[in-house]
Formats: sequence, structure tokens, C-alpha cells
Amino acid sequence: MTATPEAEVPTNARGAPLSKRGERTRRKLLDAAEQVFAELGYYEASIVKITEAAGVSQGTFYIYFESKQQIFDELVADLNRRVRHAMSEAAKKGRTRAERERLGFAGYFRFTAEHPALYRIIRQAEFVSPDAMRRHYAKIAEGYMEGLRQAMDDGEIVRADPEVLAYALMGIGELIGMRWILWDDKQPPRQVPEDVFEEMHRFITRGLGATA
Amino acid sequence: MTATPEAEVPTNARGAPLSKRGERTRRKLLDAAEQVFAELGYYEASIVKITEAAGVSQGTFYIYFESKQQIFDELVADLNRRVRHAMSEAAKKGRTRAERERLGFAGYFRFTAEHPALYRIIRQAEFVSPDAMRRHYAKIAEGYMEGLRQAMDDGEIVRADPEVLAYALMGIGELIGMRWILWDDKQPPRQVPEDVFEEMHRFITRGLGATA
Repeated sequence: MTATPEAEVPTNARGAPLSKRGERTRRKLLDAAEQVFAELGYYEASIVKITEAAGVSQGTFYIYFESKQQIFDELVADLNRRVRHAMSEAAKKGRTRAERERLGFAGYFRFTAEHPALYRIIRQAEFVSPDAMRRHYAKIAEGYMEGLRQAMDDGEIVRADPEVLAYALMGIGELIGMRWILWDDKQPPRQVPEDVFEEMHRFITRGLGATA
Repeated sequence: MTATPEAEVPTNARGAPLSKRGERTRRKLLDAAEQVFAELGYYEASIVKITEAAGVSQGTFYIYFESKQQIFDELVADLNRRVRHAMSEAAKKGRTRAERERLGFAGYFRFTAEHPALYRIIRQAEFVSPDAMRRHYAKIAEGYMEGLRQAMDDGEIVRADPEVLAYALMGIGELIGMRWILWDDKQPPRQVPEDVFEEMHRFITRGLGATA
């Protein structure tokens, strides 16, 4: 998996850029929101619970975000940027497409293990903010397609509709991660077992018609 | 995609079997619940809204189900049985594994197009009823693995961990269905475009190392 994230420019609730200190407070609120939304779900979560978890006042919350819905949307965008960054940073060390695919997936699974909230939050977005959810997948797909097109041009994988491949690959990552990271609460640190990862990678390599 | 559903024995809230008429009323309540949960989400849905949509009294509801949570769990189980049935009925007409895979996926996408609520309901289950969600995927995987093992024994596909293949294939179906059926609200009857379907099928056939 590979995807290229754009730079993030954090702003306050009115769209103005932040000081270093403002950035840290905003970050604290997003991290708290990640925990609260993952634990309680959107409907049970509240701004009070988020500010308590962040250790800031409610007034401070409204400097950075307008509402519970807005911080939720920002959180989806934030996790999206970070998971894409984790994937692309990992993948770029590979020399072949197959290697980049392996490293990108490993980066994705590492991020998933560190942020199990990602799944729960994206799935909630289906109701809370369908557009945010759609953007999440579309943005990952976009970066992915770029890499796949390049690999096709370089003759490293079969020529095929890159969007279909991108969604197929994202689906594989999502359900393998769900089954072997999220459901396996017994073995911290959670990770996809090596034999499962290798089996998945062989399936993908064959599917892409990739030269190893 | 293939999966083998077991027989369904509908019961009332106390686990006793139902008359034909009772079965019809229970069915009506489940169909209404499917619509209400999909449209409003679990938290906004209520037993009153479900009984109104079904055209039955609240007293009648409690003959069949104990609570909103219980009808939700039953609905997940019901949709699960039906999607597996749709897949296995379609797949069994295929003569080779590749054909069965093609027909099973087609059956799955048809069901998804007719029951777009399936996605929304399964995703909500993450919070409302994590066990019901897990059972949903595990049951589809189970039937799938059986078919894949058979195909391995028959030398129709590569030998590989059938559970890894099953989750990879389910992931592909889930995200391709999301992207091309659920997001495409402009073109009823929604269906996965033929070229997308064929591209996906080629990816899967290569991935399984299947003889066409």
C-alpha cells in the first residue's frame, strides 16, 4: 500500500493558522477525541468528555473546533493523513512494486495496531459523516492509483484499471487487519502474524502479476 | 464467493417455534427494522418507529423480540444468512472454482444492491453488537474456506491458508461493492459495472492461481 499525503496546516475554528502552542493544544484535543470516540462511540461521546480527557477547558475547545461533529470530521481527516503518511513512508524504501506493496501494507498494519480507533471511527463515519468516510477511502485510493500506474508503466505489474486494483487492495488490508489485529486482543503488541502476512502478500503479488 | 448457510428456525421472544402467521409477522418486523436502522441509524431508531413501519402494535413487537438490541442482533443474523444463501445459490451453478468465484461475487453484489442496508447495519454493529459483527464475518469466512479447501484438493487453485484467502476475498467484495454500488446513487438499478467486475475477477483469478 502506498499513498502520498499532502501537508497539513492546522487552523483554529475560524480557519486562522495556529501558533506552536495552539498546534499542541489542538493536537491534544484530537488525541483525546480519538480515545473518546473509539471508546464510547459518537453518540455517547460529548465535548465535555473530550475536554476532560484532554485536560483543557470547554472554552478552549471552541477556539479550535465548532462542534462535536466538526472535531469528528477533523479527526477522520487527521487519521487519514497519518495512515497515508505511515504507508508512503514505509513503501518508499522498496525498490520493486512488490517490495513497496509489502512495506506499505506493513506500515498500514503497524498504524492500525497503534490506532485501533481508526476502524471504529471510520465505521461510525458511515452515519455521522458519510462524506468524511468517502473522502477517507477516495484519498487513500488516489495515492495508491498513482503508484500502481507508475508500476504499470514500468512493466512491473499487469496493465489493469488502477482504481479497481486500489479498492481491491484496500479491502484486503481492511479485513486482514480487522481479523488479525483488531480481533486478537489477547496478544499485545497486536500484529498480523508473519505467516498470515506472507500468505496475503503472495496472493497480492500473484493478483498484480508482479515480478517479485 | 461461496458460503453454505444453515437452515433458519424463526422463534418468538421466548425461543418457541412460530406458526406460519407468526413467521410472517416476524418477517415484517425484520424488514421494517432493516429500513429503519439503515435510514436513521441504531441510536435514532426506536421500537415505535419499527412497529409503525411494520404496521403492527408495540405489544406485537414484544411477542417476537425482547428489545431494540435484540431485533438488531437478529437482523444482522438474518441478513447474514440471506447474503450467504444468495452467494452459495449463485456459486453452485459454476463448474470450476473460477466460475464459482465469479458467480458467487455476482450473487453478493446483487444482494448488496437490493439490500444497501447490509453495509450500514454491519458497520453499526461495530458498536451496537461487536459479537454479532464478528459472527457475521466469521460465518461467511467459514463457508468460504470450505469451498477453497475443496478447490485446493482438486488442484484448481494454489495451496494456501484458506482463512487468509477468505478474508482477502471478502475484503475485495466489501470495498468494490462500497465504491461501485453504494456510492453510485445516480444509476438505479445500482450494479457493479461490467468492466469493473471483470477487472476484479481477473485480479482474483490470478491471486488464487486458478485455472480459468
